[in-house]
Amino acid sequence: MLDEAAGASVYFKCEHLQRGGAFKFRGACNAMWALPDDEAKRGVVTHSSGNHGAALALAAGTRGIPAHIVVPDGAVEAKIENIKRAGGIVHRCAPIRRIAKRPCVRVQRETGATLVHPYADAHVIAGQGTIVLELVQQAPELDVVITPIGGGGLMSGCAIALKVLKPNVRPIGAEPAGADDAFQSLRQGERVTSVVPQTICDGLRATIGASNFVVLRDHGVTVITVTDAETRIAIRQLWAELKQTVEPSSATVFATLLQRRGQFEGLRVGLVLTGGNVDLDAIDLNLSA
Amino acid sequence: MLDEAAGASVYFKCEHLQRGGAFKFRGACNAMWALPDDEAKRGVVTHSSGNHGAALALAAGTRGIPAHIVVPDGAVEAKIENIKRAGGIVHRCAPIRRIAKRPCVRVQRETGATLVHPYADAHVIAGQGTIVLELVQQAPELDVVITPIGGGGLMSGCAIALKVLKPNVRPIGAEPAGADDAFQSLRQGERVTSVVPQTICDGLRATIGASNFVVLRDHGVTVITVTDAETRIAIRQLWAELKQTVEPSSATVFATLLQRRGQFEGLRVGLVLTGGNVDLDAIDLNLSA
Repeated sequence: MLDEAAGASVYFKCEHLQRGGAFKFRGACNAMWALPDDEAKRGVVTHSSGNHGAALALAAGTRGIPAHIVVPDGAVEAKIENIKRAGGIVHRCAPIRRIAKRPCVRVQRETGATLVHPYADAHVIAGQGTIVLELVQQAPELDVVITPIGGGGLMSGCAIALKVLKPNVRPIGAEPAGADDAFQSLRQGERVTSVVPQTICDGLRATIGASNFVVLRDHGVTVITVTDAETRIAIRQLWAELKQTVEPSSATVFATLLQRRGQFEGLRVGLVLTGGNVDLDAIDLNLSA
Repeated sequence: MLDEAAGASVYFKCEHLQRGGAFKFRGACNAMWALPDDEAKRGVVTHSSGNHGAALALAAGTRGIPAHIVVPDGAVEAKIENIKRAGGIVHRCAPIRRIAKRPCVRVQRETGATLVHPYADAHVIAGQGTIVLELVQQAPELDVVITPIGGGGLMSGCAIALKVLKPNVRPIGAEPAGADDAFQSLRQGERVTSVVPQTICDGLRATIGASNFVVLRDHGVTVITVTDAETRIAIRQLWAELKQTVEPSSATVFATLLQRRGQFEGLRVGLVLTGGNVDLDAIDLNLSA
């Protein structure tokens, strides 16, 4: 039914079923396990509105070391809850992107913890790339792989992995129209950091990282933007037909297909569903007895 | 996390991922494939508020024969849509249980179609029992199996299969408190048909079948009732933690565990998630940008 709606053959990589409910566990583990023992024992720190924070806390648990997570006020409660459940030490900060670094720096100074950036980190990028490693084994005949784009860590890892493993598969990023800094950056040929994100896709509000922009540019990544209205339609279709409770960011990839039906006609498209951490209070069940 | 919430080890049988989005395809196929060719060619007919109708239409498609589905007004739109997509011929009728039989009888008379009752049918019951056949292979060490109870077809099949395959596994039915005719029937030792169902679990409003009551009684089935409020909490937990979009009826089984924490302490419990056909309009996503 989804193939019919999309006019293409779709293959989903279900990272909402990953530990922590999002793909972020991959990159967090790779970064965590690469740390030498003497650094690791002082712990790790990051700033995250949710999924990376929970993933880092889970990964830190695998080495028995502390994880400090700086969370901006206004983050999705379900994701903050995940961080706490995973044993993360939560530090709240003002919801202003550019000052999120300050509490991070303070924690680093006080504890000697190592910063694990959510996306502009080579180990994190490599970890996220394992998605493509698995996807091309599970669905060897793909023409296109579409992932959401926030800070660009996931797409950086996937684009690098595709270039090596399947150079003919086109990497496409799905980005909310209300947070289209990657789209603008690639169009202008330089990193645009001035976009003030306004989107229901809470996982995609980050600004494209400097290193991530270079990877995207040099690996021929195309970005397609989708409106929140289009994403809402995609969420409902994925919930209703796949019966999978994915979060809004995940649905952007399917929204891309619906919006550009002709463009993917008859192609085999791999779609990365990035996470399933939806706020419970964001769901109203209007069920009647 | 769900094990912790339930105080037990839980194993889910995910029938919302079955063809048609519900377990009903099992019984419908078994009934359909048991028909001799000369009967089959005249088609099949049933009355169903949803999942059985879609399942019968899908099953009829496997033999290329017509399926007439009598649907009461007020049924969940997503389920009626499923029936049509599966190629079923929909006949609307008034939403009064006891007159649903009339259009069925009329279709039978006019077309010679065979009635495939949603639950009081030996082939349908046997088909639903294949759930237990698979479940005990997938999770061999269960102490209890809990299924929702509506008309009793699913539980009849499961209880019969358990008695043969795993006589020490206890069969427990989860029934909405607002449609507790099976609970009352077993308590009184005779079939109670006077309950006027009032529950959000649209798949569990049917009255226990006469043959189903006998099977439940003779196979030591216990019924536990859950309120709609308890079911709502269970829906949210299943959506949030399993990331699976199950329908309200499915959630009754997990609601049972939450409500009776002490009773299942440390046990291995198989839970049948019966379907995932939720009305799209019943979901409000209060997402903020």
